[in-house]
Amino acid sequence: MLENLVDFDAAALPGTTIKAVSMEYYQVPLAEVLSDAKHGDHTHFELIVCRITCKDGLEGVGYTYTGGKGGRAIWSLLEHDLKPLLLGADAGRIFSLWEDMQYHLHYVGRGGLVSFAISSVDIALWDLRCKKLEQPLWKVAGGAGNSTRCYAGGIDLNFPVEKLQANVAGYLARGFNAVKIKVGKPDYKEDVARVQAVRDTIGKDTVFMVDANYSLTVEQAIRFSRAIENQDITWFEEPTIPDDYEGYAQIADATSIPLAMGENLHTIYEFEYAIAQAKLGFLQPDASNIGGITGWLKVAHQAHAANLPVCSHGMHELHVSLMASQPHAGYLEVHSFPIDQYTTRPIVLRDGLAVAPDTPGTGVEFDEQLLGPHRIHLK
Amino acid sequence: MLENLVDFDAAALPGTTIKAVSMEYYQVPLAEVLSDAKHGDHTHFELIVCRITCKDGLEGVGYTYTGGKGGRAIWSLLEHDLKPLLLGADAGRIFSLWEDMQYHLHYVGRGGLVSFAISSVDIALWDLRCKKLEQPLWKVAGGAGNSTRCYAGGIDLNFPVEKLQANVAGYLARGFNAVKIKVGKPDYKEDVARVQAVRDTIGKDTVFMVDANYSLTVEQAIRFSRAIENQDITWFEEPTIPDDYEGYAQIADATSIPLAMGENLHTIYEFEYAIAQAKLGFLQPDASNIGGITGWLKVAHQAHAANLPVCSHGMHELHVSLMASQPHAGYLEVHSFPIDQYTTRPIVLRDGLAVAPDTPGTGVEFDEQLLGPHRIHLK
Repeated sequence: MLENLVDFDAAALPGTTIKAVSMEYYQVPLAEVLSDAKHGDHTHFELIVCRITCKDGLEGVGYTYTGGKGGRAIWSLLEHDLKPLLLGADAGRIFSLWEDMQYHLHYVGRGGLVSFAISSVDIALWDLRCKKLEQPLWKVAGGAGNSTRCYAGGIDLNFPVEKLQANVAGYLARGFNAVKIKVGKPDYKEDVARVQAVRDTIGKDTVFMVDANYSLTVEQAIRFSRAIENQDITWFEEPTIPDDYEGYAQIADATSIPLAMGENLHTIYEFEYAIAQAKLGFLQPDASNIGGITGWLKVAHQAHAANLPVCSHGMHELHVSLMASQPHAGYLEVHSFPIDQYTTRPIVLRDGLAVAPDTPGTGVEFDEQLLGPHRIHLK
Repeated sequence: MLENLVDFDAAALPGTTIKAVSMEYYQVPLAEVLSDAKHGDHTHFELIVCRITCKDGLEGVGYTYTGGKGGRAIWSLLEHDLKPLLLGADAGRIFSLWEDMQYHLHYVGRGGLVSFAISSVDIALWDLRCKKLEQPLWKVAGGAGNSTRCYAGGIDLNFPVEKLQANVAGYLARGFNAVKIKVGKPDYKEDVARVQAVRDTIGKDTVFMVDANYSLTVEQAIRFSRAIENQDITWFEEPTIPDDYEGYAQIADATSIPLAMGENLHTIYEFEYAIAQAKLGFLQPDASNIGGITGWLKVAHQAHAANLPVCSHGMHELHVSLMASQPHAGYLEVHSFPIDQYTTRPIVLRDGLAVAPDTPGTGVEFDEQLLGPHRIHLK
């Protein structure tokens, strides 16, 4: 069903036998409560860091995150179920290990939480590969360029209109020229008014997306999208539940606004079906839950073959390199969970573009001083 | 997309506020190593038990199981993520709680491991409901009857032919008149020979299924199924990966043997797509991973609307009641993981049919003396 990636694995590097695997679990509070239509209030995010050390002493760092639930279970999968598989394996054979991990946990998996755990391992393996090659991720993953278009993704459904407007104005002041807001108020007319208020604030030339977090029925989504067609909306994200590919197609047929989804598709097969049936305009895989960089690149290749731009969701400090690496990249989401603020290199914007780090590896290095206080030790 | 179940929730019963939720984790060794084509060797199974106590003191017991991996993560989801949602909720509103749990964990879910955790809670809620009603599960879940056709499901790919034959002969001696074996040897001709050897052993009137545990390509599955068409095979289970609905349809078009799957479909939407696209002959939801009794019944209703028999996978001590309750039941799997041997009522066969317990509740009561030694205390 899928085209193959170039098999880097043939070029496995010496000294990459895995000697140690260790995990860290963090609960990081948000500066304020952030809400969307379906997940409700977010007060913190969970960060699960996976460190893989090779025989030659090199360390790769991977991670995944959640909106606040399930993180301990991810830690458990890593500690009790994946670590035994990884110890002694060749860290250089990433694609083989990806497949091994999928089938090792297949009975309790096929996507879902297992994909989050695999993601953190896979990212650590890519970090190792790039460090071995002494190349930054954007070069190893594709090399199309070192910067990408991006947008600020607000989680702002609980903000009154004035605060919503101030928030998007703040994004523009920070250098963004594209913004996204949440929709999904009980009365869709309120959403329409909020969209209008934001468009008034950002002017006609700023790229503008909306995101319902799958809270609407197909009929509600069609009604709403028609009501905002005059607002030059770049995409309508997750109008309805991600499982209903045919429902997406119905919405796409009924509106001129392109549809986007991906953060809730956790296998490459789900993307395959979504591409074939949902009539999407943009694909949004998240390397933290689609199986890491390997999973994200597989979806990028699917998108390429389907003539669709690939985008991202969350963890922008990592996705910036992946998006920059692809010739068919759409827009990087700069997410409201500020993981990058706990690294040594928060996101860098230049002329409205996000710039990928040039350091060997993924370029994501956690700042122990900032992150340490939020660690919870698990056993 | 789905028809609704009758809404029992309207009849929520007094005193059912949830006062306590507690979990137990067990690793139960198997008597011998059991193998299949894709999961490899099984040395033990994991059992995760969920006990829910209501204000009036009544206790409901639910559980889920795995083939040996992921169980601690399920425990973690229950302890850290679902328990806070459940405490204080009305245990009588099962369908609402099912939906609440799905969306509470949606970001790390949509099926996968989250479905296992939800399953154990949901089964405990149904146990409570049946106890409140002072009725056995087979009556509350549908009431079609108190017994069901069944088959012995071997996990026997590692057995030499003679042992395989002795094993199925043992099933017949125990009173079964239907058996299933594993297939998926590296050379399909060996599988063909094993099928022939088993048919010779069981005679022409015994119902006979085969199960490849999704190990074959579409092409291999077609080649093999054609080679055993003369063996009167009732179904060919999981010929290829559960994600490839269209691949299943290709196989179904190429062979006269009906296809079966379900143990690896963990959302009702996956069943919806499988029904629409995979040309299956039998559906096999597993209440331990499709969202409990609620999930299983939803799939049973999907099957009914699609004119397909509903079957089961694993945990026969519970599924016997669900299968008996449905007018369109196919065959109950009596699985090789002997969970029932750790309960006060191991499976009961009468004239080749499996008989549902008549005690109020699910009728599954764990024997502390037998199970206790296998408990691992988690924190």
